[in-house]
Amino acid sequence: MENFEFCNPTRIVFGKDILESLGKETETYGQRCLLVTGRSSAKKSGAYDRVKKGLQDSGITVFELTGIQSNPVLSKVHKGIEIAKKEKISFIIALGGGSVMDTGKAVAAGAKMNKDIWQVFEGREEVTEALPVVCIPTLAASGSEMNGFMVITNEESGYKLAAGSPHLYPKVSFLDPELTFTVPGDYTAYGGVDAVCHLLEPYFNGPDPYTPVQDELAEGLVRTIMSETKGCMRNPRDYEHRAALMWAATLALNGLTRAGVGNHPFPIHLIEHSISAIYQVAHGAGLAALLPGWMRWKASKDGPQKVAQLGQKCLGCHGERTDKEAAIKAVEAFEDWLSEIECPKSLSDLDISRDEHKKIAQNALFQSKIWDIDDTYNLDTIMEILSFCQ
Amino acid sequence: MENFEFCNPTRIVFGKDILESLGKETETYGQRCLLVTGRSSAKKSGAYDRVKKGLQDSGITVFELTGIQSNPVLSKVHKGIEIAKKEKISFIIALGGGSVMDTGKAVAAGAKMNKDIWQVFEGREEVTEALPVVCIPTLAASGSEMNGFMVITNEESGYKLAAGSPHLYPKVSFLDPELTFTVPGDYTAYGGVDAVCHLLEPYFNGPDPYTPVQDELAEGLVRTIMSETKGCMRNPRDYEHRAALMWAATLALNGLTRAGVGNHPFPIHLIEHSISAIYQVAHGAGLAALLPGWMRWKASKDGPQKVAQLGQKCLGCHGERTDKEAAIKAVEAFEDWLSEIECPKSLSDLDISRDEHKKIAQNALFQSKIWDIDDTYNLDTIMEILSFCQ
Repeated sequence: MENFEFCNPTRIVFGKDILESLGKETETYGQRCLLVTGRSSAKKSGAYDRVKKGLQDSGITVFELTGIQSNPVLSKVHKGIEIAKKEKISFIIALGGGSVMDTGKAVAAGAKMNKDIWQVFEGREEVTEALPVVCIPTLAASGSEMNGFMVITNEESGYKLAAGSPHLYPKVSFLDPELTFTVPGDYTAYGGVDAVCHLLEPYFNGPDPYTPVQDELAEGLVRTIMSETKGCMRNPRDYEHRAALMWAATLALNGLTRAGVGNHPFPIHLIEHSISAIYQVAHGAGLAALLPGWMRWKASKDGPQKVAQLGQKCLGCHGERTDKEAAIKAVEAFEDWLSEIECPKSLSDLDISRDEHKKIAQNALFQSKIWDIDDTYNLDTIMEILSFCQ
Repeated sequence: MENFEFCNPTRIVFGKDILESLGKETETYGQRCLLVTGRSSAKKSGAYDRVKKGLQDSGITVFELTGIQSNPVLSKVHKGIEIAKKEKISFIIALGGGSVMDTGKAVAAGAKMNKDIWQVFEGREEVTEALPVVCIPTLAASGSEMNGFMVITNEESGYKLAAGSPHLYPKVSFLDPELTFTVPGDYTAYGGVDAVCHLLEPYFNGPDPYTPVQDELAEGLVRTIMSETKGCMRNPRDYEHRAALMWAATLALNGLTRAGVGNHPFPIHLIEHSISAIYQVAHGAGLAALLPGWMRWKASKDGPQKVAQLGQKCLGCHGERTDKEAAIKAVEAFEDWLSEIECPKSLSDLDISRDEHKKIAQNALFQSKIWDIDDTYNLDTIMEILSFCQ
C-alpha cells in the first residue's frame, strides 16, 4: 500500500423525506442562498418546489442560476459568480446532476476570488476559500456530492478541465433516492458507467501492487453498481435499487477506494473529457466507448492479471486456464454488460472515426499537462489507447 | 436501505515515516499536550521516543498519562482529567491501542465538563465539547482512531460502558503500520476478531433487509481481515500485511458499513464488555468465544439466510443444498478460522461455566438499559445467547 492522506468531511443525509429538514440544516450557512439547477428535470420531479419552499419557510432569500446543461460551461459559472458577488450570497445549493453540482462548486470558489475561476482549472491559481456548498443530487453518477472535484467546459477554447480543492467538499449533501425515480434509462446507464469508471481507474493502478482493501471495496462497489443499474432500468421507481445505486455511486468517488493505491491520473476521464468537449456526447456514453479498449490496452501494458481478477471477482468469469485468456473473457463480459444497459462499447459506436484520434489526443494532452501527469500519457500513448478503443 | 446520516471528519495520515510530520500537523491544536500511553509497548517499539521528540522539536510542552491497560479504567481517566485541567492542556495525543485511545477521548471530554465523565457513560450527560484528540494507534483492532466512541471500565462498580459523541472523532490519526510490527501473535489475532465483530454485528441486521452496498463492503473487509490476520501472524514484520490489516480494521468501525442498515445494538460487544469487566479476559478473546454461538442463535431467530450468505461470500462455503445446511457450515468454517489464529471459540474455552451466565447477563442488561436498547435484548434473551455460546 502507498502512503496516503484521507479526509472527507462532507455530511451525508440519506433517505426518504429528508428534504423536510433542509431549511433547518442550512440556516447555519446564512440567509442568502444561490440555488443552482439544470434545465427542467428537478421541476418535473417536484424537487425544485420542495427545496424552494423549504428554504423560504426558513426565511432564506433564494436567488437562482438555472439552465445548467450536461458538460457545464464556464459562461454559466461566470454568471453565477456575478450573482453571488452582487447579491452577497452566503451559500450555494446545487440541485441536479454532476453538472449542476460542479457548477455550484465553481461558483462557490469563484465568488471568493478576484481572478477568473478558469485560472484554477488551468492550474495557475488555487482555491483558498469558497462559499459553503450544499448538494442535492438528482442522478447517481458523478459522486460530486461527496468530493472536492469539479469539471467545467470552457466553450470558447473547447477544453473541459477538472480541478479540486479541500475547500470544495460540500458541507452537507442530501441524498434522496426518490429524486432519481424520473431519470430516464439511458442516463441511469450512463451514471452507472461513470461510477464504475471512477472505481476502475484507480483499480488498475499498476502491474502488481498489494492493495487488497482497496480492491475488495472497489470490486464490491463495481458488482453493486453493475447489478443495481440494471435493476433501476428495469424498475425505475424501485426505491431499494435506486437507493443502492445512489449510495454506491457516491462512495465510488469519495476518496475511499483511491486512498493507498498511489498516484493515478484518471486517463479515461481525461480522454473522455476531450471527447465530450469536442463532440457533445454524454460523459457516461463516452466512458462506455473507451472502457473496453482501455482495459485491453491495460492488459497489454501491465500484464493481464488485474483485468483477469476483475473478471473473476465482478464479471462471473471462471475456469479460464491462463490470465491472458481470463482477461480477454473479462473484457468481453464487461462489453456484455454495456450491451445489456444499451451503452456504446467503442468509438465507432459513437460514430467517431480513426481520423479524429489526433484531435482528441491533442486536446487530452493539454489536460494532462495541466494535471501534471507524468510522461506515461503522452501523445503517442493516448493515440495508442484510442486505437484500442476504435 | 434505512435512512441514515453519515459524517466522519477524521483526517487519516497513513503510511511509512508519517510521524515525522506530527509536530507540524498538531501545532494548530496548541502548545500544551497530554500524551496518553500504555504500559511499555510504545517504548519498546521506539514510537514513544519518536512522538515525544517530534512534539518537543515543535516547541510543544508534553505532559503524560502513562500505564493505561487493557479494559481501561475510570480512575486513570480521572487522573488524566485532573492533569488536563491543572496544566491547561490544549490537546490530547493517544499513542497505543484502543484502551489508550478511548482513555484519551474520555479525558478530552472530561476536561471540558464540570460533572463526572462517568455520567456520560451512564447516559445521564452528553458530551458537548472536547479537547482535540490526535490518535496514533499501535494495534489494528478497535477502530477508535476513526470514530467517536470510547469504552471505559468503572473498576469500582464493575461496569464496562461505551459512549460516543461527534465531538470525539479524532482531529487527525496517524496510522503507521510499522508501529504494529511488535504486536504479539495473540493480540494480533484478538485485534482481527474485534474488527471482524465490528463488521458482523451490523451485517446481521435483521431477517431480510436489502443492503447490498453495506453487505459488499462488510464482506470485503471481513475477507481482508481474516486473511491478513493470518498473514500478520505468519510474518509479523511484513509491511504489506500489517498495512492492509490496519486500514481494514480502521474502516471496519468508522461508520461506513453501518450507515443504512438501521438500528442495531452491538449485542456481542455488549455481552463481551460484561465478560471482560468481570473476568479480565482480553476483549478480542471474549468476542471470539461469543461469535460462533451468536451466529447460531442469529440463524435460529432470523432464519439461516444471512449466515449462509456470509459462508458463501467470506468462508469458502459452496455446494450446500439448503440455507440451513449452509449456515451450519458457515459457523463451522468461522470456527476453523478462530482455531487457525489460536482463539477461543466458546465460553468453555475461557473456563467460564454455565453457572456464570446469570451474572454476565445481569451486567449486560444494565448496559443495554443505558444504551436504550429495545426489549430484544432482555435477560432471557441474553441468557439464551450465552447458552448458545457455552
